Amino acid sequence: MAKPKFKELRRCYGFDEVAIMPGDITVNPDQTDIELTIGNLKFDVPIVAAAMDAVTDVNTAIQLSKMGILAVLHGEGVQTKYDNPQEILDEIVHAPQAEMASILQKIYSAPIKEDLLAKRIEAIKKAGAICAVSVTPANTKRLVPVITAAKADMLVVQSTVTTARHVSKSYKGLVLSELCQSIPIPVIVGNCVSYSACLEIMREGVAGVLIGIGPGAACTSRQVLGVGVPQVTATLDCAMARDTYFKESGRYVPIITDGGMINGGDMCKAFASGADAVMLGSIFAQAKEAPGKGYHWGMSTPSPVLPRGTRIRVGTTANLQQILFGPTSVTDGTQNLVGALRTAMGFCGASTIKEFHNAEVVVAPSITTEGKAWQRGMTCSS
Amino acid sequence: MAKPKFKELRRCYGFDEVAIMPGDITVNPDQTDIELTIGNLKFDVPIVAAAMDAVTDVNTAIQLSKMGILAVLHGEGVQTKYDNPQEILDEIVHAPQAEMASILQKIYSAPIKEDLLAKRIEAIKKAGAICAVSVTPANTKRLVPVITAAKADMLVVQSTVTTARHVSKSYKGLVLSELCQSIPIPVIVGNCVSYSACLEIMREGVAGVLIGIGPGAACTSRQVLGVGVPQVTATLDCAMARDTYFKESGRYVPIITDGGMINGGDMCKAFASGADAVMLGSIFAQAKEAPGKGYHWGMSTPSPVLPRGTRIRVGTTANLQQILFGPTSVTDGTQNLVGALRTAMGFCGASTIKEFHNAEVVVAPSITTEGKAWQRGMTCSS
Amino acid sequence: MAKPKFKELRRCYGFDEVAIMPGDITVNPDQTDIELTIGNLKFDVPIVAAAMDAVTDVNTAIQLSKMGILAVLHGEGVQTKYDNPQEILDEIVHAPQAEMASILQKIYSAPIKEDLLAKRIEAIKKAGAICAVSVTPANTKRLVPVITAAKADMLVVQSTVTTARHVSKSYKGLVLSELCQSIPIPVIVGNCVSYSACLEIMREGVAGVLIGIGPGAACTSRQVLGVGVPQVTATLDCAMARDTYFKESGRYVPIITDGGMINGGDMCKAFASGADAVMLGSIFAQAKEAPGKGYHWGMSTPSPVLPRGTRIRVGTTANLQQILFGPTSVTDGTQNLVGALRTAMGFCGASTIKEFHNAEVVVAPSITTEGKAWQRGMTCSS
Amino acid sequence: MAKPKFKELRRCYGFDEVAIMPGDITVNPDQTDIELTIGNLKFDVPIVAAAMDAVTDVNTAIQLSKMGILAVLHGEGVQTKYDNPQEILDEIVHAPQAEMASILQKIYSAPIKEDLLAKRIEAIKKAGAICAVSVTPANTKRLVPVITAAKADMLVVQSTVTTARHVSKSYKGLVLSELCQSIPIPVIVGNCVSYSACLEIMREGVAGVLIGIGPGAACTSRQVLGVGVPQVTATLDCAMARDTYFKESGRYVPIITDGGMINGGDMCKAFASGADAVMLGSIFAQAKEAPGKGYHWGMSTPSPVLPRGTRIRVGTTANLQQILFGPTSVTDGTQNLVGALRTAMGFCGASTIKEFHNAEVVVAPSITTEGKAWQRGMTCSS
Repeated sequence: MAKPKFKELRRCYGFDEVAIMPGDITVNPDQTDIELTIGNLKFDVPIVAAAMDAVTDVNTAIQLSKMGILAVLHGEGVQTKYDNPQEILDEIVHAPQAEMASILQKIYSAPIKEDLLAKRIEAIKKAGAICAVSVTPANTKRLVPVITAAKADMLVVQSTVTTARHVSKSYKGLVLSELCQSIPIPVIVGNCVSYSACLEIMREGVAGVLIGIGPGAACTSRQVLGVGVPQVTATLDCAMARDTYFKESGRYVPIITDGGMINGGDMCKAFASGADAVMLGSIFAQAKEAPGKGYHWGMSTPSPVLPRGTRIRVGTTANLQQILFGPTSVTDGTQNLVGALRTAMGFCGASTIKEFHNAEVVVAPSITTEGKAWQRGMTCSS
Repeated sequence: MAKPKFKELRRCYGFDEVAIMPGDITVNPDQTDIELTIGNLKFDVPIVAAAMDAVTDVNTAIQLSKMGILAVLHGEGVQTKYDNPQEILDEIVHAPQAEMASILQKIYSAPIKEDLLAKRIEAIKKAGAICAVSVTPANTKRLVPVITAAKADMLVVQSTVTTARHVSKSYKGLVLSELCQSIPIPVIVGNCVSYSACLEIMREGVAGVLIGIGPGAACTSRQVLGVGVPQVTATLDCAMARDTYFKESGRYVPIITDGGMINGGDMCKAFASGADAVMLGSIFAQAKEAPGKGYHWGMSTPSPVLPRGTRIRVGTTANLQQILFGPTSVTDGTQNLVGALRTAMGFCGASTIKEFHNAEVVVAPSITTEGKAWQRGMTCSS
Repeated sequence: MAKPKFKELRRCYGFDEVAIMPGDITVNPDQTDIELTIGNLKFDVPIVAAAMDAVTDVNTAIQLSKMGILAVLHGEGVQTKYDNPQEILDEIVHAPQAEMASILQKIYSAPIKEDLLAKRIEAIKKAGAICAVSVTPANTKRLVPVITAAKADMLVVQSTVTTARHVSKSYKGLVLSELCQSIPIPVIVGNCVSYSACLEIMREGVAGVLIGIGPGAACTSRQVLGVGVPQVTATLDCAMARDTYFKESGRYVPIITDGGMINGGDMCKAFASGADAVMLGSIFAQAKEAPGKGYHWGMSTPSPVLPRGTRIRVGTTANLQQILFGPTSVTDGTQNLVGALRTAMGFCGASTIKEFHNAEVVVAPSITTEGKAWQRGMTCSS
Repeated sequence: MAKPKFKELRRCYGFDEVAIMPGDITVNPDQTDIELTIGNLKFDVPIVAAAMDAVTDVNTAIQLSKMGILAVLHGEGVQTKYDNPQEILDEIVHAPQAEMASILQKIYSAPIKEDLLAKRIEAIKKAGAICAVSVTPANTKRLVPVITAAKADMLVVQSTVTTARHVSKSYKGLVLSELCQSIPIPVIVGNCVSYSACLEIMREGVAGVLIGIGPGAACTSRQVLGVGVPQVTATLDCAMARDTYFKESGRYVPIITDGGMINGGDMCKAFASGADAVMLGSIFAQAKEAPGKGYHWGMSTPSPVLPRGTRIRVGTTANLQQILFGPTSVTDGTQNLVGALRTAMGFCGASTIKEFHNAEVVVAPSITTEGKAWQRGMTCSS
């Protein structure tokens, strides 16, 4: 029997599998420009703190803003569901691991209080900081008036998978184009991973797109649903969508790679793959100022019927200043992220993030045999 | 010396190595249709309980049928070889691991009692449930009259590798086309893994085909015989055979991916690769109602001379209802399988299983370094 | 700067990375023919016992010959260097692991005694068994007269890498064609791994070629020298050389895949890749009759200056009869090798080893995460 | 929506992933010629000791030179920063691991003393040995007069990434072509990894190029910056640059693969990939004579703000003579490197290093499942 033409599967890549090739020119790190622009807002550093309760609260949002960093407050988390979020955070931190998933389900099943949402936004604004808030598509219409009334600077509409076209019988789907036109602040939407989904979202008029679904195999979404695309490929593809959209519209919409980065090396790879910014969770959860107090939990809003994340101990290692700008004595890439970004850009001869997008990313798998790892590469010169 | 054209080996993929890419449209999970049709029978849920003694007995067959699920009774196992199967199951469960293989060999070397086979079928039918029974090709002719007389609803002819053409000098080979024409109930045949073998089996007139030989490297068939094809590739190829056969005959024969799925993610990947249904063993063996009482054993009928499976402790985690429909607090993908399937379909914009077959499956290897796994993907949004 | 066309490296495959795809026809195992012919000699079973001191001595050579198996006596090992080899074997078995390499160096630095070589051969022949003896190229000229005078049935000329053309200033190179013409018994030569080297050796008139250099990454040759080719690719390429040579000469020279097979699955993959026979070491070293008494050591003759193998504990698991023909209760593929070969051939519809060469070998990597392995593939049907 | 042409990533290879295919001719090891020429200097052995404080001091530089080996003194390390380097080395060796990175930062932040630099060079020269000294680009102009005045034989300008074109506002970039013309000794420059960067450096008139940036995944550069290219690909590409440059200029500039080699097998793979020499660190750090006394530390000059290396325990295993020339009883490839190189060359029929460049390097991944490793490849013949 003649063989048919079998289906070919596309190979996708994650951070662990790639490396950045240095350039033919090098630039001194102090000559690199890493500014980020989203809509009408400018940030000194293209790193965004995730809309997760272990990472962003009123306090860290204010501190990070002062450092030139965008932090997104979780609009449907403990900050907006509980008058005293500290009490709830303590409960999460001290709960036994075995009961974690059900405790998170219970805690996050509480209703969002609109007055608390307004109160949190106002507290951040009052400190002179930039305030961004995240909501899920299903709650967007209801919460947008509160958010704009409280004078937030940016809206983030985020769910595991968000597309420009959603079919639902239980509620009238959110029309992104209407949303973007109807409110005066930039709207970031996510998450998506494919060229076509990203392009469609950009055409709705959004100010930025979050990239990343089930990044890395440990993401529970992969185990529970089988859905997900490794971050390097997702970023490469969506960067291509951004460039296509820029050609057709003249508007440059930044993409923000969200999730799966555990050190500066991963972060640099995201930029070299085409990211305009990165959204970090677990790295910020390690900060002394982090509300998670050394813990982190996966899903921003655990599902009551199909949970896909649990609590993780990440430890408390340094303050936000050190994590972002150093100096540091750790060699694992979790501190001085800005120094790492500028150094990597310099090695690639990139003066700007956009030039860094031209760096070549190559497939270079990690060594799997742990025992040999220590010896490999020991002679990197200074 | 000139180099010849060296043989190229085809790359095949297993569940661990792939992921499903979300779609450009999303659909609410409650709007998905997952019905399964095999011959004249319809099932609410496209999941089949394996013909293994740790999974299916009269009791679970009845309960699963009420939940809209097809369960296949092992026609040549403890249920049809022993008057009191409970006693034998207890012996398996309590035997020391070191003697396991030889105890299984001894237990399964007992003869099939035709009256017991009839009795088990009648018990299932009496409860108003749908009854399917599996037999091996060598025993099919002898047992079919008993099975049809007892009014079973479906016959499953299953061995490690079943083809439309078998050469034997010890017994006249089973002619599948004659079998399918001679009995009034649908016949499912398996297992096979290749396009051509699957197509040939469909042309015999079968009502469904089981896909999967030595799925995954831990399958003893791989160690003992070297034979086997990873399930994603096997499913993709046999789905292509189904589509070819549909074009040539106008008859749609469902394929059932059998084996190697350890969580909802794997199950969803099987559907996205082209499966119309999945047959699960170890996941059901974890049910409180399972006859295996927290254990599972590999081969349905251990070979007396070349055993390729042993007893495994899978634990008892939840009841059948929770495993299939939730709600759940576990995050490892072993519970609420139907919820997972509907959610994954929704992420891919698929309203039906056939639409889900159009989802893109990409190569996205798991992270091998366990130590890093916890950190990866921590920021999946809700 | 324009990029040049970079060098592409060829991907090679080992046993762990491949699997055999079953066929469209199946054959009953009892209808398979597995006879092996080397020169004028015929063997019931295409398995060869390695020329290693832990595997083959006079006793096992006789026993295996009676079972239809070729065993090769190590012509430059303890059997021909020591009057009382048992004493030396005991010393190896009981030596502390830390001193192993230097003890092996010392033991194997003793001179070969020609009278002992003759005596061992005569003992095997006297028992009515077939006798094959291995020597290294450097000693071939000196030892051949002894070997032929003692009426050995086969000569094996073996070193890590043997080619038809060797350049040396310390001794006049062995000319294989002269050797083959000058002695009345079949000459097997090895080891080699490439199409061209194998073809050149066949053109010298040899009766068989051993395939395998540094098979598998644990082979010390890989660590010490970086040299080696995984066995599936080596076997595929050398099978192609055999077929080329058969077309040009009309003479069919069997290739014997030597090394790297740890279970029946690996052995079956070697045959499906094109091997006419396999040479096994560690599997036979596990036999109750093995001279190694549960130990095995890597190199047949440890180098005094650059050792590349040490002693390994393999354990004693069963007698030779069970290892080869079963029955067995172990499920790891180390026993009933002949049953495994016939079963795998049957699954592929192969009645002969030559038909088995047509089976498709596919790339199907093992699962690396041990923890998940037990669950995968648990539902293989009988 | 039509899919765009997605970006393809180039696959790069490290030592663990490849093996050398033996040749069709073999040559006796004693007939191989391994001489290395750099500028006007000749060395018996193409192995270079790294410019790292745990490896090279005045004493080992002298001893290695007598063995025909080039050793590079770290011009900006403890030898030139401290009057009594032994005291400092002891401090590093005895410091607690947890404080290691900050202790290294502190120690290496001391200023370079030009008189000490001169003194070390003179001590080496006085013993009749060849003296090479390394400096970083930023300090080159200042230190070159000292180095040439002290009559060093060779200058090594080395940093993590060095290119022919560096953009800086803090200091006027080093112009390599001016440097090479202005001093009377050969200049080696590094490190680089790409064809184009290597070719540009060669065109500046250098006498040799160091190849290797972040070799292997354990290199902290990969974790901290994401930058690096596996060594086999880097060596293959830069060897192509060398050949291109030779064609355009008639001048043969040797490339020296630096880092990531942990045994003789890795070293041989570097040569087969195109290296003219290899620079080793951790293997020499294991020598009884090594200043590191069983320890090694990654970066030659730890960064005060972004450290990328720490102290490692490598152990003390043998003296320099044994590591280089044997004899040895270890089988892990860390001793008798010269014997290993000659043997591997012999297996590939290469009489010279340039002929060894023609050996075929194939992709042959290591086995990841440690547990199976011992068994694989046990039957390599002598």
